[in-house]
Amino acid sequence: MKRGGQLVGARLAYEIWGTLNAACDNAILILTGLSPGAHAASSTEDSSPGWWEDMLGPGKYIDTNRWFVICANSLGSCKGSTGPADIDPVTGEPYRLNFPALTLEDVANAGHELVRGLGIERLACLIGNSMGGMSALGYLVQHPGSARSHISISTAPQAQPFAIAIRSLQREAIRLDPNWNHGCYDDAHYPEAGMSIARKLGVITYRSAMEWGGRFARIRLDSDKRDAHPFAVEFEVESYLAMHARRFVHNFDPNSYLYLSRASDWFDIAEYGGGSVEHALRRIHIERVLAIGVNTDILFPLVQQRQIADGLRGGGARAEFVALDSPQGHDAFLVDIPRFGVAIARFLDAL
Amino acid sequence: MKRGGQLVGARLAYEIWGTLNAACDNAILILTGLSPGAHAASSTEDSSPGWWEDMLGPGKYIDTNRWFVICANSLGSCKGSTGPADIDPVTGEPYRLNFPALTLEDVANAGHELVRGLGIERLACLIGNSMGGMSALGYLVQHPGSARSHISISTAPQAQPFAIAIRSLQREAIRLDPNWNHGCYDDAHYPEAGMSIARKLGVITYRSAMEWGGRFARIRLDSDKRDAHPFAVEFEVESYLAMHARRFVHNFDPNSYLYLSRASDWFDIAEYGGGSVEHALRRIHIERVLAIGVNTDILFPLVQQRQIADGLRGGGARAEFVALDSPQGHDAFLVDIPRFGVAIARFLDAL
Repeated sequence: MKRGGQLVGARLAYEIWGTLNAACDNAILILTGLSPGAHAASSTEDSSPGWWEDMLGPGKYIDTNRWFVICANSLGSCKGSTGPADIDPVTGEPYRLNFPALTLEDVANAGHELVRGLGIERLACLIGNSMGGMSALGYLVQHPGSARSHISISTAPQAQPFAIAIRSLQREAIRLDPNWNHGCYDDAHYPEAGMSIARKLGVITYRSAMEWGGRFARIRLDSDKRDAHPFAVEFEVESYLAMHARRFVHNFDPNSYLYLSRASDWFDIAEYGGGSVEHALRRIHIERVLAIGVNTDILFPLVQQRQIADGLRGGGARAEFVALDSPQGHDAFLVDIPRFGVAIARFLDAL
Repeated sequence: MKRGGQLVGARLAYEIWGTLNAACDNAILILTGLSPGAHAASSTEDSSPGWWEDMLGPGKYIDTNRWFVICANSLGSCKGSTGPADIDPVTGEPYRLNFPALTLEDVANAGHELVRGLGIERLACLIGNSMGGMSALGYLVQHPGSARSHISISTAPQAQPFAIAIRSLQREAIRLDPNWNHGCYDDAHYPEAGMSIARKLGVITYRSAMEWGGRFARIRLDSDKRDAHPFAVEFEVESYLAMHARRFVHNFDPNSYLYLSRASDWFDIAEYGGGSVEHALRRIHIERVLAIGVNTDILFPLVQQRQIADGLRGGGARAEFVALDSPQGHDAFLVDIPRFGVAIARFLDAL
């Protein structure tokens, strides 16, 4: 691991769609944001819709009739890959906080091992969104020649202080929950309150004030659906946040959340360029790049996607920067599929 | 009280600067944001610097050689005015959650009583910033003819869902802290964790990502000032948030915070205009208005200050909208004094 320590017999969960061709030159790897698993889209093995269901599949924007697509669950996550909730084979106990310090370079290297294990020397395209976009830059800078092209979505070449502050506060909410208990919780004593706050803060920063102004305005719940006390859920926007928290709290391991969150803060491509983001990006040699984001993203502002395109262009790539006018903020790549899909399909079609 | 209930023998803390002239036409009332008290500036009685020290005083932007300035601590606050931490004379116990539901109209009406009690029929200017700007609109719409002019700073005619979401989460952090104990805490069992999260989230939304990018970048604390575990405070921005939380946690009553926070969500001038902000503002007749804010404010975006200026202009006011290009976000009115001061002084000089 980059910061020391090692994982013995670590496992990486992944899913695949489409068929690898004889030349092994039609493979796409997707590295994900903090919380999604490898199930990006439905398949014959698992017909449930994936987190990028409308983007990926036969005849869709990422067309699995042409491409062999792999999606990896991040190392350290809790969706099948080895993470803090798993048993440490050395001690026979769950890792919990004994899990080694995790970086996005470790996440990237695990993805690279997976690709090599599938017999692929060079990806046709490496796609990374949000945290996965940082992992993807870590992949490219550490493994020269490992990809022909790159799609970088709503991400950053380094974590900026506003995003660090948000994530630090999410972690604090979990860590201050007495049920977190220094990582030693169980189902009966679970940091629900902390996870709820962390998730709600996530949802707030993943969307945009503009979208919510139009969507929720000042709409209130019917009075028969409200408690009487003045601090009860009263506005639709509060109910929306509560719904998102309910869905998430018990579906993501709190320690995994902490590790991946901190890994995001630590990521800084400038480490590979003598302290300069530009120099580091220029060291990555790749044929074609699409760096794309939206104008309402407060967590990964557009200026950071422009920086990626400019930096990779400096390394010789034909790099395109696309700024979408989408109201949905950071989450737009998950929900504004038509806008993102067209740009991604156009890029892939031209490969 | 607007939502029912009453306060018996309620107290309003205030401070004054300058001298009321014989015509009683040089009075300015300042209504504050959620947390500040009445001590806006130093005085002969209290020489400690106030929260608007560089704005207010003899020869300053709000020149107390000319103006008689009053600053009121909001009703429901804990800085001298009656709030949830005070003893309910009816029961002999602290109000805590038995404090009546509080609205910004109640805050406004308490301010109006204060002004009348000082023998002032009509203010030369009513100034409100942040939450106090909403209280000020509540003041004007309920008391026709009570002010000749109005300065509306970094505020809104109604709470929008993004701001409601942030405040709802701040309240949740306090309410989920086991030490909050449904409002029955004491110094030994105090909701420190909840207050810390609430304050940090406040600070994050009061400033701007742009300012922090320049100010903190990815600067880290010296390693001898850090704990070794991966979730310890490591980046300067985390240390900055911790410092702000430390200063605040025990200096503001958590129940007061909840009440004033919810009052802010509830405020909607449209209630006075048949559901229309524009119609409500048009009902306010006032000679001159300055509505001012900054382009980096994510909590009270500029579009809301423009809406105030446009609406009051519709009621006949000579209303000016000033958009400042300030990196400090919502807090700019507290820290970017030169920019705000010049605009405010120019407006007051012309009265």
